[in-house]
Amino acid sequence: MSVTAAKGFTAAGVAAGLKESGAPDLALVVNHGPRRSAAGVFTSNRVQAAPVLWSKAVLAGGTVSAVVLNSGGANACTGPLGFQDTHATAEKAAEVLDGHSAGEIAVASTGLIGLRLPMDLLLPGVEKAAAELSPHGGEKAAIAIKTTDTTHKTAVAERTGWTVGGMAKGAGMLAPGLATMLVVVTTDADLEPAALDEALRESTRTTFDRVDSDGCMSTNDTVLLLASGASGVTPPREEFTEAVREVCADLARQLIGDAEGASKDIRIEVVNAATEDDAVEVGRSIARNNLLKCAVHGEDPNWGRVLSAIGTTSAAFEPDELNVAINDVWVCRNGSVGEDRDLVDMRYREVRITADLSAGDAGAVIWANDLTADYVHENSAYSS
Amino acid sequence: MSVTAAKGFTAAGVAAGLKESGAPDLALVVNHGPRRSAAGVFTSNRVQAAPVLWSKAVLAGGTVSAVVLNSGGANACTGPLGFQDTHATAEKAAEVLDGHSAGEIAVASTGLIGLRLPMDLLLPGVEKAAAELSPHGGEKAAIAIKTTDTTHKTAVAERTGWTVGGMAKGAGMLAPGLATMLVVVTTDADLEPAALDEALRESTRTTFDRVDSDGCMSTNDTVLLLASGASGVTPPREEFTEAVREVCADLARQLIGDAEGASKDIRIEVVNAATEDDAVEVGRSIARNNLLKCAVHGEDPNWGRVLSAIGTTSAAFEPDELNVAINDVWVCRNGSVGEDRDLVDMRYREVRITADLSAGDAGAVIWANDLTADYVHENSAYSS
Repeated sequence: MSVTAAKGFTAAGVAAGLKESGAPDLALVVNHGPRRSAAGVFTSNRVQAAPVLWSKAVLAGGTVSAVVLNSGGANACTGPLGFQDTHATAEKAAEVLDGHSAGEIAVASTGLIGLRLPMDLLLPGVEKAAAELSPHGGEKAAIAIKTTDTTHKTAVAERTGWTVGGMAKGAGMLAPGLATMLVVVTTDADLEPAALDEALRESTRTTFDRVDSDGCMSTNDTVLLLASGASGVTPPREEFTEAVREVCADLARQLIGDAEGASKDIRIEVVNAATEDDAVEVGRSIARNNLLKCAVHGEDPNWGRVLSAIGTTSAAFEPDELNVAINDVWVCRNGSVGEDRDLVDMRYREVRITADLSAGDAGAVIWANDLTADYVHENSAYSS
Repeated sequence: MSVTAAKGFTAAGVAAGLKESGAPDLALVVNHGPRRSAAGVFTSNRVQAAPVLWSKAVLAGGTVSAVVLNSGGANACTGPLGFQDTHATAEKAAEVLDGHSAGEIAVASTGLIGLRLPMDLLLPGVEKAAAELSPHGGEKAAIAIKTTDTTHKTAVAERTGWTVGGMAKGAGMLAPGLATMLVVVTTDADLEPAALDEALRESTRTTFDRVDSDGCMSTNDTVLLLASGASGVTPPREEFTEAVREVCADLARQLIGDAEGASKDIRIEVVNAATEDDAVEVGRSIARNNLLKCAVHGEDPNWGRVLSAIGTTSAAFEPDELNVAINDVWVCRNGSVGEDRDLVDMRYREVRITADLSAGDAGAVIWANDLTADYVHENSAYSS
């Protein structure tokens, strides 16, 4: 499963010693071809870690032979020397993987910002991982990129003759010890980089881009899609995009479900918006409202906080035409009191908030988490 | 002191029974003239409470004879009936204050959203307050608008022959039980509504508008400036604006210092920005970053979180030219590691973060609070 579900890939996950705990902290994913097409999407934060700058340059060529991923250090805000470290990592991988060039090796890192990586441990780790590469190594790779994730995260979409699989760690900036979402998706479909890019952008737009655990944006977020062509099948564009979207949605949902310090997963659906952009803006505003996130934690169906979050947006709506449901009880009708809030049962982990803007027929779903004392505790006791 | 520091004003604060605790919950401020000029600024939330809609209409006339303020209920999202309740409150005040019209009486409310006010208690409260009006009633009025504020908040700026004074409650949406910032500022300066409006907007722009306790925006925020003209002095425009700004800044600082659940007051100064708008955008982004707010709570000088917050803005800057100081220690230089973070002492309540964008000579100061388990606790145990 994971990144080795598709034919043409091997992977490994090893302990390089970057984590003091001795847990696995370095993963390697190798594309054995015959094709080595790739596409990537990266954080839109303007402060970008060295591996993001490196990998963006690699991806510009459309070819990726291997990906080195490490936990235990983000290599962000580390200046020119940090960039040299990333370069050296790619060079090391090229050296141990015969026939590859460093310019085709992507690198992804996660951990504390502002610290150099211990290259004396990381480079031998790359060599160790290369020695353990296996067509069954997907699980181990998924485990090695875990930081504070309680479980490793993998997903697979199987189609007739071809497959898409992937692994993920982290949820936005939520993981306190080790920021960042890292995702690698692989496929044995036979596709050009341009086709991968289109499918990946369309997929992440409605999945990872709509996961908003705590409103913070990492310096290291990376989502890569690699194609080996080993199936020999070139699926129709829409069919392929749907498979990639299925894997991304599955992984995104797992990220929210395992967000650190969270006790609730909040599914925010905005309906009857004038445009999809309006729906997304409103959904994000609700997702980022600390008072509402606290109320959800307290199992309090406080729809007034939903309305006040909607009211800060520029979306098209009339205040007295807003309707809000919490777990399907329409507690707010026409901008005022609706059904009895005591009918809302919020005991379960998943909470559904529906915001009806009465302004059109567009919609969007955003996933978020509640705000808890555990979140505060874990994120205030971080680097000290 | 407070709203009765300036000549021409009386005030009262009484217990109308809106609060179950029996604490004072209704304040009345009356302008006895000879002039009754007024200006107001209100929440920019598009979901606005009935008293905000009412008072905006009153202020459009430029004349305010009295203000009724209540805690114990926000009268927001209460529909046409809620608006009728506000209207009835103004009518009652007009009735008990001889010679005034309801159309010149502003109303402000704070408390839970989505609940009607108990008018059978509120209207007798207005009558009771009118009977207790006094030129020394400013403190009592300031006490009556307290919600979860631990102390009442007043400020005065005395000038030669004229005075500006005011009272405030709440900090943005932070107070859990009773959302909203309510502020009344009075002066005996002899000024037209247009002059008041100019001074108030210029003052709030750099004071209340730059207080960002938890990023949430209330449906009820109201700041009023009333002038009685009783001093007979018409101060120069800039001198008057400076006095109003001084009172607003004093009250704003008190709000942050008493924000519920907070253990730190964070002064974020953005320097060397290309424009003031850039500086404000960057300051707000830092102020609203939950991870950074947690780090400050934990007394962790986590400058990486400052950089990642700056990186989400559209302000002009180059990532490798950013400098960040925490309590005057430049822990980040040129986008990378600067002075030793162990030199930063964060034991005291006030924490200073300086973000140097190296992009120009504009700047701005934003005040925020940290994010604590107390905040989560108080805001999750709210209406239930």
